[in-house]
Order: sequence, then C-alpha cells, then structure tokens
Amino acid sequence: MCWNKNILTSLLHIKYPIIQAPMAGGITTPELISAVSNSGGLGNMGTGYMDPIELKENITKIKLLTNSPFGVNLFVPSPPEFLEEDNSLEFIKGILLEIENELDIKDNEKQSNININYQKLFNNQLEEVMRARVPICSFTFGIPPKEVIKELKQNQCTVIGTATNVKEAILLEESGVDIVVAQGSEAGGHRGSFLNEKGGHIGSMALIPQVVDNVSVPVIAAGGIMDARGIVAAMSLGAQGFQMGTAFLCCEESGADIKYKEALLNTYEDQLIMTKVFTGRSARAISNKFVRKMRIFEERCMPFPIQNTLTGNIRKKAKQLGDKEYMSLWAGQGIRLIEENTAKNILNNLLTNVNNLMDN
Amino acid sequence: MCWNKNILTSLLHIKYPIIQAPMAGGITTPELISAVSNSGGLGNMGTGYMDPIELKENITKIKLLTNSPFGVNLFVPSPPEFLEEDNSLEFIKGILLEIENELDIKDNEKQSNININYQKLFNNQLEEVMRARVPICSFTFGIPPKEVIKELKQNQCTVIGTATNVKEAILLEESGVDIVVAQGSEAGGHRGSFLNEKGGHIGSMALIPQVVDNVSVPVIAAGGIMDARGIVAAMSLGAQGFQMGTAFLCCEESGADIKYKEALLNTYEDQLIMTKVFTGRSARAISNKFVRKMRIFEERCMPFPIQNTLTGNIRKKAKQLGDKEYMSLWAGQGIRLIEENTAKNILNNLLTNVNNLMDN
Repeated sequence: MCWNKNILTSLLHIKYPIIQAPMAGGITTPELISAVSNSGGLGNMGTGYMDPIELKENITKIKLLTNSPFGVNLFVPSPPEFLEEDNSLEFIKGILLEIENELDIKDNEKQSNININYQKLFNNQLEEVMRARVPICSFTFGIPPKEVIKELKQNQCTVIGTATNVKEAILLEESGVDIVVAQGSEAGGHRGSFLNEKGGHIGSMALIPQVVDNVSVPVIAAGGIMDARGIVAAMSLGAQGFQMGTAFLCCEESGADIKYKEALLNTYEDQLIMTKVFTGRSARAISNKFVRKMRIFEERCMPFPIQNTLTGNIRKKAKQLGDKEYMSLWAGQGIRLIEENTAKNILNNLLTNVNNLMDN
Repeated sequence: MCWNKNILTSLLHIKYPIIQAPMAGGITTPELISAVSNSGGLGNMGTGYMDPIELKENITKIKLLTNSPFGVNLFVPSPPEFLEEDNSLEFIKGILLEIENELDIKDNEKQSNININYQKLFNNQLEEVMRARVPICSFTFGIPPKEVIKELKQNQCTVIGTATNVKEAILLEESGVDIVVAQGSEAGGHRGSFLNEKGGHIGSMALIPQVVDNVSVPVIAAGGIMDARGIVAAMSLGAQGFQMGTAFLCCEESGADIKYKEALLNTYEDQLIMTKVFTGRSARAISNKFVRKMRIFEERCMPFPIQNTLTGNIRKKAKQLGDKEYMSLWAGQGIRLIEENTAKNILNNLLTNVNNLMDN
C-alpha cells in the first residue's frame, strides 16, 4: 500500500489521486473545480442537463482559473420507460400543482417541457467537451456509444465510466473506458446505476474489492469517503482513486445554496433517505417536506428525466425563496464529517492526514 | 495503523481481533465457533430464539472443543407493535397457508404459536449464559436492561452491543457496554437497528468513522468485510475489531444447509435484497421464490418476531426438502468473495494477507 505507486496520477496527469465528484445543479462551480485542480487533485464539473452554451462558458472560466487537468461529467441519455396508458403523469402533475400553488409559483415562472430531446442535448454537450479539448470526460447513468468513447480517446481525452455493481463495471471496461468509478451506496445524490437500479445499492466496503477483482482498468472509489481515513481504507480495498462529493459540499467554493449548507451541517446520517421523488431516479438526500409529501406516491413518479423536469419549477422557486423544505438536498452518508473550509485547505489536510495515517 | 497496538485483543483475551459473527438458525455450530477461537479469533454463537436447554448443550460442546474465549449473542426482546384492528394477521396467514399447502406441510408439522413469552425466553437464555460463565455476551436488536449489563460484568463477562447508526452507538455506550459493533449496511441477515429501522442502513465506509468519533469504547466493524483488504480498510477507518459473517458461511464447519451454500456460491452482489418478509425485520438475503411471492405484501407483514414465527413452518419444511426457494438465504454484499475452506484456513489466510498488506 503506497501513495507513490499510484497509476491514476500518471494517467490523469495529476499530483494526487483525489477526485472532487462531479455534482450537478450548480454545486461544482469553476471556483471549486479549479481550487481542487490547483491543489493537485482533480476538479470535475457536474453538468446534468446544462445548456451547451453555459457548459462552454464554464469550461472557459475553469481554464482561466487553472492550467491543471479537470474533468466534465455527462449524463448518458436513455429513453424513459414511459407508459402511455397509465394516468400517473396527470396524477403526479396534480400533486405537484398543489405544491406549486402553495409556493405561489406563477404560470409565467413555469417551465415544464417534458419533450426535451435529451439525445440532441447530449450530442451538443459532447461537442463542446471535444471542441474545448477537456482532458477528462466522465459519464453517469450508462455506457456512452463505443464511437463516442473512441472519438474522445482519439482527442486525448481520458474516459471514465460509473458503475454501481460488478456487472456494470465489466460492461464499462468492455466498452473501452480508461477508468471505472465504483459508486458505493453511501454516496449522496443519484445512484449511477444503469442495468438494474435495485441491484446497485452496494456499500463501498463490499463493492470496491469486488469491482477491483473483476476489471483490469484502475478503479476510483466513491461513496462514504470523507477524510484521510476513508482514502486509506479505499486504498486498502484496491482503489487507485478517491472520489469525494459530500466532503466538498460545504466548502467556500461550493455552489450549494446557503440553506442547503445549513441543512447539511445540521443533519445526521440516519436522517437521509433514498428516493425517486425529485427526478425519477433513486438518489440520496436529506428528508424534507417535499420528500415526505411525495414519498407515498413514490411508485407513481414519472421515470427519469421526466420527473426531474416536472419538479424543476418547485426546486427553482425553493432556491429563490431560500426554502430548504422544497430543495433537493443531496447528501452522502458521511454527513457528520462535512467541514466548512476552503477546497484548498480540505485537500491539504487530506494529504497531511493520509501521510500521517500511512506512517503509523 | 498497527495490528499490535490493538485494544480488543487484551480486552477479550484473544490473539487476533477477528470476530466470527454470531449467526442464528444453526449456522454457528460448536465446530465453527471452536475452530475460530482455537485459531486465535473469537467464535460467536448466534442463538436467536434457541431453547435454553439447547443453548446450554451447545455451550458445553464448545467448551469441550476449545479452551479459548468465545461469545454468545442474544436478541434483546421488545414488544412487537401489533395493531389489533388491522386484518393483516389473517391476510398474511392466508398467503402463507397457500405456500404451506404448495409445500405439502401437514397440520401436525405446524407450530405457529405467536404467543411465545420472549421476555421469559430471554431471561432463561441469560441465566444459562451466566451459569456457564460464558466470557463474552453480545446483544442485537436493542439495549439490554442496565441491571443485566451490570450483572454480566460482575460475572467477568464482557458485554458487546450492536449499533447501526451513531445514535444507537452512543446509547449503547451510555448503557455500559464494553464494546460496540458498528453494523454497516453491507451485512447479511438482520439489521440490528433498534431506534429507527429506516435510519440504520449506513454503509461501513461512512458508519465506522462516524461511530468511532462519537464513542470512547472500542468499535468492531461489521458489514462487507470479506478478506484482509476489508480488515485493513476497517482498521484505517478506526475500528479495533473485524467481524465477519458471510465470509464463514460456506466454510466446512458452518451449519448452513448444502443448498444454501450452493446458492451463496452462485449469487452476485446485485441479486441480494433487503426484506422483512421472513421475520418482520429488515434483513439482507438472496432473492428466491418466497421473497418474490411475499414482497408485494411487504408492508402488511407482521412485526418481528411474529412474522418470524408465522414463516417458521415453511422455512423448516424447505430445509427438510432441500428447497432453497423457501429458505431464508441470508447473505452480505461481499458475496463474490465467499470461500469454501476450513475456518482455520480462512483465519490463517486472513492473518498472512493482513500482514502482507500492511508491509507493502
């Protein structure tokens, strides 16, 4: 077990194999990404359904702030399994309308076009990533088409896939990705599962060694890593990289809303839930009024990304109002270990403490 | 990080802080327990609702097979929250009767007395543990009464409690237990939760450091530890002891049914589910026909231990028939790493590999 023999640092041209997780929804600001990359780790932008123009602008901003490598994460589109015969769409819309009225959301504030062409959006996002020669591109919710992976690699872009069980990791390796992220069930936000959502809630302690044993590409551990202890633990399990999301949520450069940060600092690990009510995909969040209200209709929620679009007005308004009860308060299970600090200090403390732990 | 500075070995008078998890239902045979204890670890008997006479006989057998310390685990009784007005009892009985008929279970093979006095059974089990001067007694599903903990300690018995989140760990420490097991969500079989079942599914990577930070007694990590990598990982997270259950399920001395062992060796981590259908408490198992049949009625299942009693006939008959589709196939998420070997060899390999890992 040795920090120096790390494969990932040479593969990604970074100093330390500490990866700041791509978190969508404006959390991973250019300031956060560049601070992590400037400190020797790898900053990553979570794009979600970010407009390609905004994506381009963000990449430009990051490049002004750092000369070090950084990554961009994209959602792989897949057609939602939408049952035309089911009346759930109208039902869910009705429930959400009640909440919209409670929050006094005016008609002109509403944008709920559920007919977005996600495939086209993905293609446009990819084009920006390639045009800007982003050095690292990671994917969530599936396997990008082989020709996409090939083209990215021809453009000197390192490709990372996200797996939540061994089968997904094997398929990702077969598709040609350079690195696999093994996302343990401790992780905050969305499960990256794409084969069988229910078969993708494996804790890191069990997931990491089993993935490592079954793929030959380097594995980045994600889920529950909050400090040097988690890094050394994941290293012992065979991971080469250490991805941390929740650990950066309350840092100065994080784009998380102030009320969201407050909630994170005042919530315990037993108060988190896994729910589909925000987006139609299982995600780990702090429970709040929205969750409690919607949870009884969990099974009738629309598939991703339709539910995501439908709840968009409410979440946007909640941010404007500073009302955490209607925000999506994504959080991982290591929540008690969140620190308020600068990203640079978090990185530096991690490095010092990893070295101390390994010397003992 | 050093194997030698371990607190637990001196506290428990064992050579290595490797704990074989107490698994009820006849898995932890005197042969398994003694083999682990004789190899320098700590063997533990899972008693569940074992008759006190059988418990006494087992303790006697273990003492014939080893002079080293071993432990006994007891379920802390708590009155089931049973709703008299609800017709679920008759409903569930009806569903189970269909399965009983399918399996051709005769009336004279049925024992479904749901009015067992669990408090009395617990007291009688405790009496046997004290009378036999069992050196270590662990508890699941709650906090034993303070006077019980006091009496055990006065009898030179080391007391271990089981926690699935930080709050439970703190309460256990306050009650006077000597050691806390932090059971991560990766673990097979029952969740040991007693405060809020839904708030007790924390992955080991997040659970262990948060528990370690909040109690001053030594912490035993459980859940997902399958080999030396898991032990070193849990050690890095701050645990002093390393409890392994699933890792011992297929060893020669394990009392698991041959069909159960076969299922374990042919199942992947994404094929496990967390379900209440067997006992009324959440437990991790391999999915089978019984689970698929009952899962739609999950919310109507009786509380623990009533559901456990009601499904007893079916599980007993399934064992007789060698029909794994109706057994409770408890398993943890590290399932791909299960080995067929003797308990002694498993222990010895662990020790060698831990030393190798720590030297690198």
